[in-house]
Formats: sequence, structure tokens, C-alpha cells
Amino acid sequence: MKVRNILGERFKERAFDIESQNLMTRGGYMKQVGNGIYSLFTPAKRIQNKIEAILREEMDAIDGQEVLFPVVMPATLWQSSGRFDSIGKELLRFKDRSGADMVLGMTHEEAAVQMAMNVAGTYQKYPFMIYQIQTKFRDEPRARGGLIRVREFTMKDGYSFHTSQEDLERYYERAYRAYERIYARAGVPEVIAVKSDSGMMGGKVSHEFMLLTDIGEDSIVICPECGFRANMDACEAITENAADAEPEELKEVFTGDAKTIEEVAAFLGVTAEKTCKAIVYQKNDDDSYILVFCRGDRELNETKLTNYLKAKIHPAVDIENANLAAGNIGPVGLETAATVLFDKSLVGASNLVCGANRAEYHLTGFDPARDLPEGTQFIDLTKAVEGGICPVCGKHALTIKNGIEVGNIFQLGRRYTEAMGMTYDDENGARVSPIMGCYGIGVGRLMASVCEAHHDDYGPIWPITIAPWQVEICALRSDDENVRAAADKLYEELEDAGVEVLYDDRNVSAGFMFSDADLFGAPVRVVISPKTVSRNAFELSARDKSFREDIDPETACETVANKVRELIAAVNAKVPERI
Amino acid sequence: MKVRNILGERFKERAFDIESQNLMTRGGYMKQVGNGIYSLFTPAKRIQNKIEAILREEMDAIDGQEVLFPVVMPATLWQSSGRFDSIGKELLRFKDRSGADMVLGMTHEEAAVQMAMNVAGTYQKYPFMIYQIQTKFRDEPRARGGLIRVREFTMKDGYSFHTSQEDLERYYERAYRAYERIYARAGVPEVIAVKSDSGMMGGKVSHEFMLLTDIGEDSIVICPECGFRANMDACEAITENAADAEPEELKEVFTGDAKTIEEVAAFLGVTAEKTCKAIVYQKNDDDSYILVFCRGDRELNETKLTNYLKAKIHPAVDIENANLAAGNIGPVGLETAATVLFDKSLVGASNLVCGANRAEYHLTGFDPARDLPEGTQFIDLTKAVEGGICPVCGKHALTIKNGIEVGNIFQLGRRYTEAMGMTYDDENGARVSPIMGCYGIGVGRLMASVCEAHHDDYGPIWPITIAPWQVEICALRSDDENVRAAADKLYEELEDAGVEVLYDDRNVSAGFMFSDADLFGAPVRVVISPKTVSRNAFELSARDKSFREDIDPETACETVANKVRELIAAVNAKVPERI
Repeated sequence: MKVRNILGERFKERAFDIESQNLMTRGGYMKQVGNGIYSLFTPAKRIQNKIEAILREEMDAIDGQEVLFPVVMPATLWQSSGRFDSIGKELLRFKDRSGADMVLGMTHEEAAVQMAMNVAGTYQKYPFMIYQIQTKFRDEPRARGGLIRVREFTMKDGYSFHTSQEDLERYYERAYRAYERIYARAGVPEVIAVKSDSGMMGGKVSHEFMLLTDIGEDSIVICPECGFRANMDACEAITENAADAEPEELKEVFTGDAKTIEEVAAFLGVTAEKTCKAIVYQKNDDDSYILVFCRGDRELNETKLTNYLKAKIHPAVDIENANLAAGNIGPVGLETAATVLFDKSLVGASNLVCGANRAEYHLTGFDPARDLPEGTQFIDLTKAVEGGICPVCGKHALTIKNGIEVGNIFQLGRRYTEAMGMTYDDENGARVSPIMGCYGIGVGRLMASVCEAHHDDYGPIWPITIAPWQVEICALRSDDENVRAAADKLYEELEDAGVEVLYDDRNVSAGFMFSDADLFGAPVRVVISPKTVSRNAFELSARDKSFREDIDPETACETVANKVRELIAAVNAKVPERI
Repeated sequence: MKVRNILGERFKERAFDIESQNLMTRGGYMKQVGNGIYSLFTPAKRIQNKIEAILREEMDAIDGQEVLFPVVMPATLWQSSGRFDSIGKELLRFKDRSGADMVLGMTHEEAAVQMAMNVAGTYQKYPFMIYQIQTKFRDEPRARGGLIRVREFTMKDGYSFHTSQEDLERYYERAYRAYERIYARAGVPEVIAVKSDSGMMGGKVSHEFMLLTDIGEDSIVICPECGFRANMDACEAITENAADAEPEELKEVFTGDAKTIEEVAAFLGVTAEKTCKAIVYQKNDDDSYILVFCRGDRELNETKLTNYLKAKIHPAVDIENANLAAGNIGPVGLETAATVLFDKSLVGASNLVCGANRAEYHLTGFDPARDLPEGTQFIDLTKAVEGGICPVCGKHALTIKNGIEVGNIFQLGRRYTEAMGMTYDDENGARVSPIMGCYGIGVGRLMASVCEAHHDDYGPIWPITIAPWQVEICALRSDDENVRAAADKLYEELEDAGVEVLYDDRNVSAGFMFSDADLFGAPVRVVISPKTVSRNAFELSARDKSFREDIDPETACETVANKVRELIAAVNAKVPERI
């Protein structure tokens, strides 16, 4: 394809803070149509097609069957699983012309069960996996970062069905490996799998695949000592409290206006570790109050609290109405209708400062084991911390990174099949519901994440396996007869050789042409100019600057094609074997 | 792939009247999820992928650039073209979580203009064509026929932009040819192009591609004499009226209860040709009345009337309120607030019977030329008829067929670019709006139409170029060691040879296996059974029964692969050259 024919314009002005969004906008990859809704120009669509081809190959290789579910589904389907009511506004609901309730698919568990229902009625039909690559819509309140977090997106989602947990686990391992292969083939072998919270999907074991980058919205907890990795939401927070030698008595002390942990600790000259703080939430349903006590230096994890309560929550907004002494709430002598919960960070602590449930006063000498009623439960509700204790190896080694989630896999169990009444006859003739797994990858987000991971200041550096074009020919001074003839010939030869080549034969300045080429991000570049022609050479270089050399025009096509093969081989060398 | 692993069940019971729907349901190709909404199983998805690959190749070959537009679009985009208000309930409108008005894309002219706007600002950038293959939703009131008429569908839609009508016409010719190639490559070279009405798309010249079949919803007018072809809606109706020798005077006659044309003609002993009938419509907007007079044997064409009025209409429902003598309405002495229109079929007619605008009476001797006010306009508002006059060659030769529309191409003009304010600088520096063409093909409908055109009582007979599998191996008595070994070997060899092969190694009866194979519709079948093995042969046969022969097991792979190539070549032989 010729650059002059590509619809889209490239420009220099920095438009966004997130670099992938910035470069892909500047490079003419996409255009915003609405909030979180984009059109893709040809360069992005070519990348998307290549990612989709990799997805198809890897899903087919683990015995996936490609199918297609609808974007628009009747509400009744989502009611049959209970999710029509349980999911929030991310699920876009509307009525069709006949007044029937409909939804836009944001995930397709229900559709997968509906498809498999009645056509997999005996155990012999199992296991099987069906997948699709299809448009999804999730009415995100906060679309951001270009293709990183959008409302409409293309997704590969697969659903496997099994007759036993063991069979699911075997398959889950294969899917896990297929995912590792997908990221490696897409040029980001650095993507890591982390244990994740299963959220609204149901089920227990799940993994997210994360590309670590500062702009990531997820916090990933990593133990460099033992290799443990988990999403913050799924990472048990472990706190060690050394009991003080000298137990103190509970004692009410004046603390005046000091209300935050920082203020109280400073006022009393203790560290935040030696305090117990109160956090107040409300349930979305009925606005009832939840009161969580944890060590003063710990942060509440909303997902853990949500999962524990099995209810949607929000930070309390009208704490005044709760009959609580805001800023002075404490666990001793507390009289409240709120649900009161204690975090594990309080276990073993003593001589803590806590609120006295009375304005301007706190208690010192609080000892949870001594001062709380017998049988008080301590629950894991707070976040792991940098330098904290690894829940696997026990070392004080945790480090916390930001990551973009570029895929996830879940062991769903019977959550959907039971709710929707899907069953099969097992070997003994009993009717049981199959066990499911599900496997998702957002295509556009993966594309943007690769750009985020592989770019320089001038543009994306696409891995050759997903680059819109493998090679770009830059013909400088295409009005020069010799340049034109040489470049036209190489273009034709490379196309005939099956190399995907972009050809810039516009009569523009070198600076203009190269800055466009940087934005197109083809990994291999061939520059043909009066200068190179005069020394009987073409200049072959890498977008990532890993090589730059003169090559013989006579054998240029072969040399370039070999370089392309070499780069592909280098990517594939990092792809793990199938299992 | 093995039949035993394919999700889906095949069954014998006839479930629907339309044969493609019936066979594709019985064959496990699809499952209804809601009214006009389907999930596709793997066999259908494989066909869809093959059709999409053909579409991509042909669109790329006419310099199309693949892009992707969103399914969900902000209403503002559709307001900018005026279609948010002008299109009916087929356009699904809803609000997102922020209360913003949104639509589901049923076509993407607005999105195409939005994409091209500001990135094609000078004449040098033209022409270009952008296309996508994407899900669309059209809230059809009458979904029917399985994938023939659905609400959600996958569509290839392309949009070209030009700086002159001549350039559009040149490109339109190429697109027209590309479409002929697409149908031929998909195995339905019998698809014909017909002139069409441009409907809600705007623009003037347009063609529909029609597969002629009794179940088609469109009426196609064909002249076998000169090759003229048009959609009924776009076919000028020509009526010859021989004036009677003896002009009669207008005379009121008693006709009693006779109200319909049949009753009146019978009562007075004339043919329907010698009558003038009245048809009453109302505008959807304001319920105002439209009164159309035409020759008694002619039928009104609603599309022509809609286009003439530039307003949506419906047959009058409360004619009693219109102050019209229902059944006795006539054009002479008529006093009404209705818009009164006269069809061309009345030109040159005389001595007609028409209503007298008085209960129980009609007039005879009506002569439109004599009795209607001078300057009365006669408009083409009725349907062409079987045996009618060809508007091109003038012969009484018209024949009328039913057809399924499997694609359309439109010369849109500046309808969208002007409305949305898209311009470029022409060679003289003037800012002008580009001229557009658009080009659509529904993938699922094409699939179902191919099935409709190519099936027998037992299943689809897929053309080899879009068949889900090119070859099916039927291993009868796979528990027989020799059969199993021979079939396994051939399966492996064919897969290695790149042949798409379906392998049925289930231990089921021949009848059961063959009836499934008929439903899968692979064009080539290889039967391996104890009987064939004992005579040292495999049986090679065609799904369409065009051949059946014993082949040598030793060279079976090569023989089968050659047969596949031969069938592909036979399809390609009917594909016209590119222009």
C-alpha cells in the first residue's frame, strides 16, 4: 500500500498524556466518535486483524470452536442468570420497538450457555470450548486512555464446559499457556499472569494477564523472592504485630480537633501503626452503614469489602446521620446500628490509639484481643503494602506495580449452568450441571498496550508479528528518476514475495517522511534516495534502531525478506510450547 | 475437525417453511436468541469467515481500505445528517448511563463521513474507499426466514469519496464488477443486478443484487427481450390505452352495493381495464389524506407514492372521516381536502367507469383528457405488470420474479457530505463537498441465500468456496480396525495437504451418518467402510450427486485434493475478470 492512499493524517502536536493514546491519535490509527467510542483507520484495523488471527490460531489449537453470539440480547436471557438485576449501569439496558427489554452484550456467559443448552445433553459431548471475536459494549463511567479503557470494544471471549473440576483444571492450564503464547506472539512476552478477584463473574480461581506499566489502573502485588503475583484485590494482606512488653490500660485522652489518623498520631506522638482507624461505608441498596476498623496505617480494599458483604457499597456520604462521632469513632463502647467489621491487621496488636466515640477524645491502650468481645472475627479487608509480607513465602518482600489487564481467565464453576438450568446426563444417568471456564482478551486494549510497552518519543515500535506493515520503503526525492525506478521495483518485488510493505513515494521532505514512518511503526525500513543510489546502495534500518546498514540493491528484496523472517523468528523464539 | 466434537445437534423434523431456515436449523448452524437475533454455531461461522475473506479480497482489489466503525453511535452524529429524525423505528434509539441519546448502527454513512472529515481536505487525497465488516442492528418489525431477514446481522459496507460524478461512475463500475465477482466466488453466479429505488439512502443511481427465488420478498421486473432488469419499486410502469372509436358522454349509473373494481366491472359488464379506481392513503405525520386514481387493473406501488410525496404513508384507516364516498369515489365533481393524484395508467384511456362520489352510483364514459382540469399531471405511481411493456425496448415482454436482495450499491451524491459539512479544496482552491458511493452486502443473508439456491431435501449443497468443510470422511463401522486405520490415515494426510476436512468417526449407522453429512453439506465425500476396504477402495462422491466412484486408497489423498482443486476451478471459471 502507498502512504499517499491511506486515509488519515499524521500530526506532531501532543494531544494526550497517555503515550499510546497520544501516538495512536497522532499516527492516524483512530478517531473518537463518542465518549469511549472509536473508529479505527486502516493501520489499526490491520493490527487488529493480525491479533485476531493469532487469537484464532491459539484458540483453535486448544480445540476451541469459533462461534458468534449476538451483540444485542433479550433481557430475559440475562434475567435467567440473575445478572440483569445484579449488574450496575455498565450493562446497557434499553427497549426495542416492541417495548421488550434488551441489553448490549458486555460479556457472553449467558449466550454461551443458551447456545450449549439442549445440544450437550450427555457426558460424551464434553469437554468443549466455544469462542467468538465480537463487538462488546460496556457503559463505563470513566472511559480513558484511547483504546485502553473504552465503552465499545472488540473482544475474544471463550467458554469451556466440563464434567468435572479436574477436567476444567486440565483445560485451564492449556488456556493459560495459550494466553502466554498469545502475548508472546503479539510481541509482549513480558505480560505476566496474576491471581485475580473473580468479581461479577462468579467462580473462584481466576487469573489476569497484566502488562506492567506506570499508566496501568490495576495494582499488582509481586514477591520477587518466591514469584508470587496477585492483583491487589486478590492478595491476602498479612500484618505482623509485635505485642508491646508492657500492656497498657484503656485510658481516655483529650485530642481536641485531631481527627485524621495523621493528626491524632502527631498529637499523641505515636506512629500510625499504633492506631486503630474507622472507615465508614454504606450499602448502595439501603444506605445502611458499614463500619470497618483496621490498623491506622492500612488502607481498605473496596473489592474485598464488597465480596465479603456480597453487596455493592460506597464511601459513606452522610456520616452525620449515622449517630457516629466522626473522627472519634472507636470499637470500645460503640453503640451503633451499623455492621461492624474488624480487619486482620488488628490481630496481635496492642496499646493502640482509637476513637472514644466522643468528640475531642480518643482512647489509648486499646488491645483488640482483650477489649473486643470474645469470638470477634477478624477479616482480610485491607490492601497489601510495599515491603509487606508475602502470603506464600512469608518474607517481607512485596513490591507493588501498576499494570494494564490485557486478558483474564476464570474457573466459573456451575454459577451459570445451574442458574440457567443447563444439565447433562452423567455416566450414571444422573442429571447434573456442567462446570464452566471462561477466557477473555480485549483486542483493542492489547493493541494499545503493546504500543504503550513498545514506543519511543516518535511513535509506536510495533512487533513485526502485529505491525500494520512489516516494511516501509521511503523513497526520498521520488521525482528523481533513479530513485523512483529503484523504489518502484523493490516495492513490486517485496509485494510479490508476500512481504507486507508500505511505500512512501510522496515528494515530501526527509523529515516529514521519516516522522510519518516513525508513527506507522513498521519494524523494518528501507530508505532509497539519490545519495544511497549514487553509492549503489539502499539503507536498511530498524524502527527500534537495532540495526542500520547499506544493502545491495540487486539482492535487496531477498535481504529485506530475510530480515523480516529473522525478526519473526526472534519473536517466536520467546513463545512457550503448547501443552 | 471431528463430527463428534462439533457443538450442535442435527435433527430430522422439519421446523420451518423456508428451506434455508429449515435446513440450517436442522443442521445445527444457528440458534435463535431472540426475535430476529441468532447465535451461529461453528459450521455457520466457518462459512461466514470464508465469505468475509472473499469480501476482503474483492474490496482490497478495488483499493478499499478496511476500517472499523462503531456499533453504538451518539445520536448527534445521526442528527448531523438529519436521519436521526427521518428514519423510523428501525433505527434503535436509546440513552446511555449519562442520559445521552445513542443509536445502534444500521448503516454507517454518517460514521464514514465523520472518519473522513478533516483528513481528506484537498483534492489530491481523492478518490478513496473505506469499508468495514461489522455487526449491524436494524429493528425490523418482521424478522423472518432465519438469517434471511434478521434484526442483528454482519455486514460488509463500503463508502467511496470522489471529486466528480465521472470519477464516482468509474468507481461504481469497478464496485459493480467486484460484486459480480463476489457472488460468483461464493457459488451463486446467477445473482443478477437490478436497478433499484434508493430509498432512505438518498442519491439517484443504485442497483440491487438479487438472487431469484420464490421465497424472495422483492419483486423483480425482467425483460427477456432486451435484458432490462429493475426492482418493481424502481421500474417505470408503462400502460398503453387504445382510445375507443366512439367517445361516450359522462353518465351516472346505478351500481347499488357494487364497490370494489371487481364488483363494479361485473355489475356493468366491463373489464377492469375500462375502470378508474381510487386508492386512499394517509400521511403518517398528520393523517392527511392522499387520493390516487389509476386504471382499475393496476396496483399502487407504495414506494413510488412515498418517494413522490417525500413523506411516510399508510393505507387510510378511517376513510369514513375523510368525507369520501368509500367505494364510489371518482375524480369528477370531487370535493375533498385530500391531495389528489393521477397515475400515468390513465393517460390515453377513455370511456372508463369511475365512482360518482355518491353512494350506489358510478359514472360511465369518463375520459381523463376531456374530464379532468387542463394541466392535470399524470405520475408513475403503479406497479409494472406481467406481460407489460418494457420501459427500455418497448416490447410487451415483462416478466416478474421474486428475489432476495443480497447486496446493493448506491451513488449517493453529496447527500451526506453536504449535510454534515464535509469539504475539500478543489484544484481552484474552492471548498466543495465530495461525492459519495456506498456498497453493502449482508454476510448472513448471503449465506442463507446460497443455501436457498443450492440445497436438496436433505440439506445444503455448499459451493466448495464457502463450504464449512471441503471434504467429509465418513468412516462406517469405525470399530473395524481396517476402517479406522484407513480413515485416520486419510484424515491426517488431507489435513497435512491443507484440505479442510470433516471426519465422522462416530460408531453410528450409515443412515444416521449420511443424513448428518447431508446437513453439513461438504461438497466432496469419502466413504470408508468394511465393504469398500474389502474391495481395496474408498468411495468418492459429490454432495450434489455429480459423481460417485471408487478410488485407490493408496493415492486417495492426492485424488481427493485434486477433486477439491477441480471444484474450486469450476467455481472460479464463472468469475468475471476485474476491471
